[in-house]
Amino acid sequence: MKLLIVNGPNLNLLGQRDVQIYGSQSFDDYFFKLKEKFSTVELEYFQSNVEGELINQLQATNADGIVFNAGGYTHTSVALRDCIDAISTPTVEVHISNIAKRESFRHESLITPVCIGSILGFGLLSYDLAIQYFVDKK
Amino acid sequence: MKLLIVNGPNLNLLGQRDVQIYGSQSFDDYFFKLKEKFSTVELEYFQSNVEGELINQLQATNADGIVFNAGGYTHTSVALRDCIDAISTPTVEVHISNIAKRESFRHESLITPVCIGSILGFGLLSYDLAIQYFVDKK
Amino acid sequence: MKLLIVNGPNLNLLGQRDVQIYGSQSFDDYFFKLKEKFSTVELEYFQSNVEGELINQLQATNADGIVFNAGGYTHTSVALRDCIDAISTPTVEVHISNIAKRESFRHESLITPVCIGSILGFGLLSYDLAIQYFVDKK
Amino acid sequence: MKLLIVNGPNLNLLGQRDVQIYGSQSFDDYFFKLKEKFSTVELEYFQSNVEGELINQLQATNADGIVFNAGGYTHTSVALRDCIDAISTPTVEVHISNIAKRESFRHESLITPVCIGSILGFGLLSYDLAIQYFVDKK
Amino acid sequence: MKLLIVNGPNLNLLGQRDVQIYGSQSFDDYFFKLKEKFSTVELEYFQSNVEGELINQLQATNADGIVFNAGGYTHTSVALRDCIDAISTPTVEVHISNIAKRESFRHESLITPVCIGSILGFGLLSYDLAIQYFVDKK
Amino acid sequence: MKLLIVNGPNLNLLGQRDVQIYGSQSFDDYFFKLKEKFSTVELEYFQSNVEGELINQLQATNADGIVFNAGGYTHTSVALRDCIDAISTPTVEVHISNIAKRESFRHESLITPVCIGSILGFGLLSYDLAIQYFVDKK
Amino acid sequence: MKLLIVNGPNLNLLGQRDVQIYGSQSFDDYFFKLKEKFSTVELEYFQSNVEGELINQLQATNADGIVFNAGGYTHTSVALRDCIDAISTPTVEVHISNIAKRESFRHESLITPVCIGSILGFGLLSYDLAIQYFVDKK
Amino acid sequence: MKLLIVNGPNLNLLGQRDVQIYGSQSFDDYFFKLKEKFSTVELEYFQSNVEGELINQLQATNADGIVFNAGGYTHTSVALRDCIDAISTPTVEVHISNIAKRESFRHESLITPVCIGSILGFGLLSYDLAIQYFVDKK
Amino acid sequence: MKLLIVNGPNLNLLGQRDVQIYGSQSFDDYFFKLKEKFSTVELEYFQSNVEGELINQLQATNADGIVFNAGGYTHTSVALRDCIDAISTPTVEVHISNIAKRESFRHESLITPVCIGSILGFGLLSYDLAIQYFVDKK
Amino acid sequence: MKLLIVNGPNLNLLGQRDVQIYGSQSFDDYFFKLKEKFSTVELEYFQSNVEGELINQLQATNADGIVFNAGGYTHTSVALRDCIDAISTPTVEVHISNIAKRESFRHESLITPVCIGSILGFGLLSYDLAIQYFVDKK
Amino acid sequence: MKLLIVNGPNLNLLGQRDVQIYGSQSFDDYFFKLKEKFSTVELEYFQSNVEGELINQLQATNADGIVFNAGGYTHTSVALRDCIDAISTPTVEVHISNIAKRESFRHESLITPVCIGSILGFGLLSYDLAIQYFVDKK
Amino acid sequence: MKLLIVNGPNLNLLGQRDVQIYGSQSFDDYFFKLKEKFSTVELEYFQSNVEGELINQLQATNADGIVFNAGGYTHTSVALRDCIDAISTPTVEVHISNIAKRESFRHESLITPVCIGSILGFGLLSYDLAIQYFVDKK
Repeated sequence: MKLLIVNGPNLNLLGQRDVQIYGSQSFDDYFFKLKEKFSTVELEYFQSNVEGELINQLQATNADGIVFNAGGYTHTSVALRDCIDAISTPTVEVHISNIAKRESFRHESLITPVCIGSILGFGLLSYDLAIQYFVDKK
Repeated sequence: MKLLIVNGPNLNLLGQRDVQIYGSQSFDDYFFKLKEKFSTVELEYFQSNVEGELINQLQATNADGIVFNAGGYTHTSVALRDCIDAISTPTVEVHISNIAKRESFRHESLITPVCIGSILGFGLLSYDLAIQYFVDKK
Repeated sequence: MKLLIVNGPNLNLLGQRDVQIYGSQSFDDYFFKLKEKFSTVELEYFQSNVEGELINQLQATNADGIVFNAGGYTHTSVALRDCIDAISTPTVEVHISNIAKRESFRHESLITPVCIGSILGFGLLSYDLAIQYFVDKK
Repeated sequence: MKLLIVNGPNLNLLGQRDVQIYGSQSFDDYFFKLKEKFSTVELEYFQSNVEGELINQLQATNADGIVFNAGGYTHTSVALRDCIDAISTPTVEVHISNIAKRESFRHESLITPVCIGSILGFGLLSYDLAIQYFVDKK
Repeated sequence: MKLLIVNGPNLNLLGQRDVQIYGSQSFDDYFFKLKEKFSTVELEYFQSNVEGELINQLQATNADGIVFNAGGYTHTSVALRDCIDAISTPTVEVHISNIAKRESFRHESLITPVCIGSILGFGLLSYDLAIQYFVDKK
Repeated sequence: MKLLIVNGPNLNLLGQRDVQIYGSQSFDDYFFKLKEKFSTVELEYFQSNVEGELINQLQATNADGIVFNAGGYTHTSVALRDCIDAISTPTVEVHISNIAKRESFRHESLITPVCIGSILGFGLLSYDLAIQYFVDKK
Repeated sequence: MKLLIVNGPNLNLLGQRDVQIYGSQSFDDYFFKLKEKFSTVELEYFQSNVEGELINQLQATNADGIVFNAGGYTHTSVALRDCIDAISTPTVEVHISNIAKRESFRHESLITPVCIGSILGFGLLSYDLAIQYFVDKK
Repeated sequence: MKLLIVNGPNLNLLGQRDVQIYGSQSFDDYFFKLKEKFSTVELEYFQSNVEGELINQLQATNADGIVFNAGGYTHTSVALRDCIDAISTPTVEVHISNIAKRESFRHESLITPVCIGSILGFGLLSYDLAIQYFVDKK
Repeated sequence: MKLLIVNGPNLNLLGQRDVQIYGSQSFDDYFFKLKEKFSTVELEYFQSNVEGELINQLQATNADGIVFNAGGYTHTSVALRDCIDAISTPTVEVHISNIAKRESFRHESLITPVCIGSILGFGLLSYDLAIQYFVDKK
Repeated sequence: MKLLIVNGPNLNLLGQRDVQIYGSQSFDDYFFKLKEKFSTVELEYFQSNVEGELINQLQATNADGIVFNAGGYTHTSVALRDCIDAISTPTVEVHISNIAKRESFRHESLITPVCIGSILGFGLLSYDLAIQYFVDKK
Repeated sequence: MKLLIVNGPNLNLLGQRDVQIYGSQSFDDYFFKLKEKFSTVELEYFQSNVEGELINQLQATNADGIVFNAGGYTHTSVALRDCIDAISTPTVEVHISNIAKRESFRHESLITPVCIGSILGFGLLSYDLAIQYFVDKK
Repeated sequence: MKLLIVNGPNLNLLGQRDVQIYGSQSFDDYFFKLKEKFSTVELEYFQSNVEGELINQLQATNADGIVFNAGGYTHTSVALRDCIDAISTPTVEVHISNIAKRESFRHESLITPVCIGSILGFGLLSYDLAIQYFVDKK
């Protein structure tokens, strides 16, 4: 089983900012550990700050599932929503923080209704649980 | 580690209604399998249709964590929100269905901001993932 | 044919309050007359102020139809809505007063969309007409 | 006792459209049966697609009661509301479908607050129940 | 192929008002040219300021398609929407002006969702394009 | 100077309803007195319950000014607004009652922005003052 | 009969600004002409930019009626509304411009519901008509 | 004089949570001191987390006055509002915290309009002041 | 202990208007009795209809506490809110009437969040209870 | 005459998804037929999933007209709106589906007010009609 | 060049409150330094807590430009907006704090649309920049 | 001190469009003059129409401060807001026009709350003032 993890804007800064909240671990380091933990799964990773490049990647993937953190585009991108709706690859939405605790414009996700489900608030463990879903579901 | 699963109103009907969606498995059957799967965890289960009895139980538990599906009270109960906020037991919100796909009055959860995180849309696997969180977090 | 009449919160006070509007007749007295009028129908009656007990009763009934006045829960209870939606017993919503004439928070009923229909504003005759529906429909 | 049934726009198409929902019975055929069923009541019938002609008819009637299905004008006509409010003939609102299940712009009726009550969702039986009200009330 | 052009309120004034915008051409003159341009199509024309007469005409037509400019009723008439939804004749909505540039109460059309499509902002050419659609579609 | 008074729906009932508020004077009687009071003005009067007939009349008049009480159409008719906007005859809006004291859906008038001005709340004297405006303005 | 004209903030600038709209006439000059026109009425005039001084004056007057243009306080002052509601002197609201044509925050007046009526859009003639009302009413 | 103090959901946790805000005093300890302070008043106390049990108690009491803190039900319970409206016992609403400083969904109380008055923000002293009201009023 | 009572606009009319509700007692008479009742407290009183003068007084006081009824400015004055927030004198909001029963624009107070607490609906006794708070708190 | 067709995000998937709705024709195939049909027009085509690249292209074109389907950016992109507003090339908006029938967030287009007009709901024929407009207009 | 700095309510407290944010400098001290810094500009200063006195001053000034911090009146005063709109003196809005970071009722300024521009969030430097604008613009 | 000026979408068109408003000066010409005026500051300039490229640049800069005009992304980009919030470089928002005078969707900026402050409405001088801020602040 091949899974693609896609991270949206500013998630490349992980480990450099808000270290008291998220720790000083970069996503690359975390991704290395993920691959060890889920050794039977083929994991790929893509990050971009450009909305259209995220769409390009989501359209192009041949993975069996997608773990998607759309970052700031979560709340504004009809184009990303349409993309997930159009492709046939099952997609799980994740968020590191509990967005329901934050500003009101972060409370509605345009992405959730076109995903299988959503996992939010568990820090980087949100990604673990999303992969676990695909493993359990298989 | 002891975990308490709490189910709100109408979830006692699981397996009797909408069997084409959720299957014909009752929550009791499912709970039996859960205990087998997570054999190192002490799992307890409570269900009530009465909002105040849910509050009573949440206040009384000595579990290390709570997995909570508030059902229809998710969107209307300030009292349940206050309860989770008041107690010190970490709580994870789960939903069987992807509530973001349903009626607009189901899009906002009063419960999410006082929980650690939320897992929704994965069918009964949502409970598995919530327990997995507590196992991984430990 | 067996029909269950279910009354929600504060409807046990009927005949004791607002007597200039509703008359001094208690619901028990009225229920006695209903049974005389519809002698071929087996009528049962249940009232509770507790939202969850109403759910318990609606789930448990083996009646052929339900006549339901949810009182103040009409406008706030997603849990009762889910209950009626889940059970297979056809349900008719009734209200004694014309709620469209009252405060704006009483204008929307969460219950109506999951019932067959709604009858409101005819005083206690609203119950008669709901029973008449089941008799005519048969 | 004389009762006037008034139907608003597009209700002349009954029996020609959505036959799988409402059946292939025209309102004329139904009206014939109504008169048989309520043989002690003098029943009259009026239909128009023109808002102002409905007002003209409502103002002119000498009936003892009105059964009114305002169709699409239900949600937009302050003028019809003012008319019912101005005349002294008691009026009962009926709807064939359960409008609370349909588009949100159909959820609020401008007519309900000036009627005695409202009966909705019972198919053509909504008219029967409205007439029954006048019979019982007498 | 027979097509019916239906114009709503105040469109009889075309050519008499706002001549700097729409030119001094009356709709009758324009209609004459339309018939020359689309000589293989049987074109009919109806205009009324009365909402109910528009409904009467839409119900009565035996045309193969309708080109409909509802004028001011576009934004307020549930009755006209219900009518188009009820009849089986395919209908195309047209507007002479770009209503999205005008007052906010003109931004939502109740008519569009029950039409095949909508063409707006091209002056009288909007009608040409609507007819062209039926010709191309054939 | 010729002035046309146009009254919308239900204003033909004046003097028959709510006599404790408006008195038992019919508009015809009042109109007779108006003509005596403003003997140098040629006064005409038109009333209809049909929105489209009001439009027809407003389009057709050759009066020097219009005094218009749109009744219930005040709050719902884009078509009447468009009509007054299209014709060149200066129009003054009047209301018998102080609509700002009534239901919130009566607080916004679609007519006011296309009239010269609005006079409301002075009973039948509102018409006097509107005529007085045209006399003074001359 | 004694009438008090009260003008709110910035109305002291009349004749100095927007002369192409209102003309170059100051309110003092206009007031002189008003007194000549209504010679049988005792007219007084008060203007202030201070909300509280307007309240002081409205409370203190012994006039038989008030003609009140609250200017910018029209849309924001609950205190002025309470004042007019508290005093027993009948008050007529006037506006020089047609405020319904202007920004949306000018469309609702807090003052109208506590006045007898409102006259707006007739330029300075709005004051004439308000005085005329008191003269006619007498 | 007999007064009944009624506390809603989660108020049984007083003294156990948020001790830095409310102190470590339990409501029982506080209630003991209240009885000493108001020795001439017969004080009773009831707490429940169940909405319907609160209604049962409010209906059943024979006290001369009620001091009611509805907790989280303050903002959601039409049923409690109806109950207070139905019974004849005068009721004073109290809140320990200043709810206007908290989340926006706590700013509107459904309870206030059916109580004599409301006292909020004074910590446990809010109860003292409510009792003082009944003592002073007597 | 010195306490300053501050009354906002129109509260100088107390005892002159709505005597059936508030009685014919002026605030001066009431204030005299207050001083007798709370003889150990130094009470001062200030009233103004001018928003800015209220600010001036609140800034200038050397009292130990303020009892503030902002009247109509309660719902509109950010400036008064900022003032109370800026000064260090603890302030208690009072209202004579139960503003939650009145027009919806009176339901939100800009003042409450910057006060210690709020007391409303108890007539003039609201002031007594506010003073009692300062006495008890001492 | 040279015309540029610009397609926004996910429209490159045409013919691969929702084939039961749009057919299995790719846009490239369709574009080939368009060029045959409008042989006297020089047609160019550009598609991108990147909002900013769409802006770059719209700014750079030397075409005589633009046919623009902004896809998911229709409802969210102020930047695209500003772009069309800034360039002098006349632009026609097209949509394949009738967006008024879909989710409410698709009902408002930020693009329409800066285009000449809009054509929506006719499938790929929407593009034909837009080109036809430029041909007819010439 | 003469410039008038106008400060609204509570800005006289500068240097006395929130000293950790704004420093302990009074506006008088700051104003002294401003005059030294911009020695070629004639600077005047006016502060009032009274809305109407601010209007009086703005109307009366003969300065070449105004630097205006309306304080709490920024969000509520249509009267101040009308004043700036009426006078011909160019006005620049300033705010010490970044009001977009504060409560939502501070996010909209009624003043901005009638000013040349707005400068906010730079502490007292906001005033420097506003003066710099007038110097650069000259 | 090094400052980076970042311009968002369509600002590359400056000097080519709306020349009657902004003049025919290109931003390059203006930037040349800025560098002359602030010769002690190292100024850099970046423009892109692509949201993600703006994010890339803002993340990558080593400047001491950023002057940012987000153009059309001001009102829609949570991703840009998150970016500014994440980086440690102090950022000042500028706008050439007074956006508060324009369409309502331009009134709220998502960028302002994460910037130090905002300067808007002064034409290209807005950039001068932003740089002046960094110079003065140093």
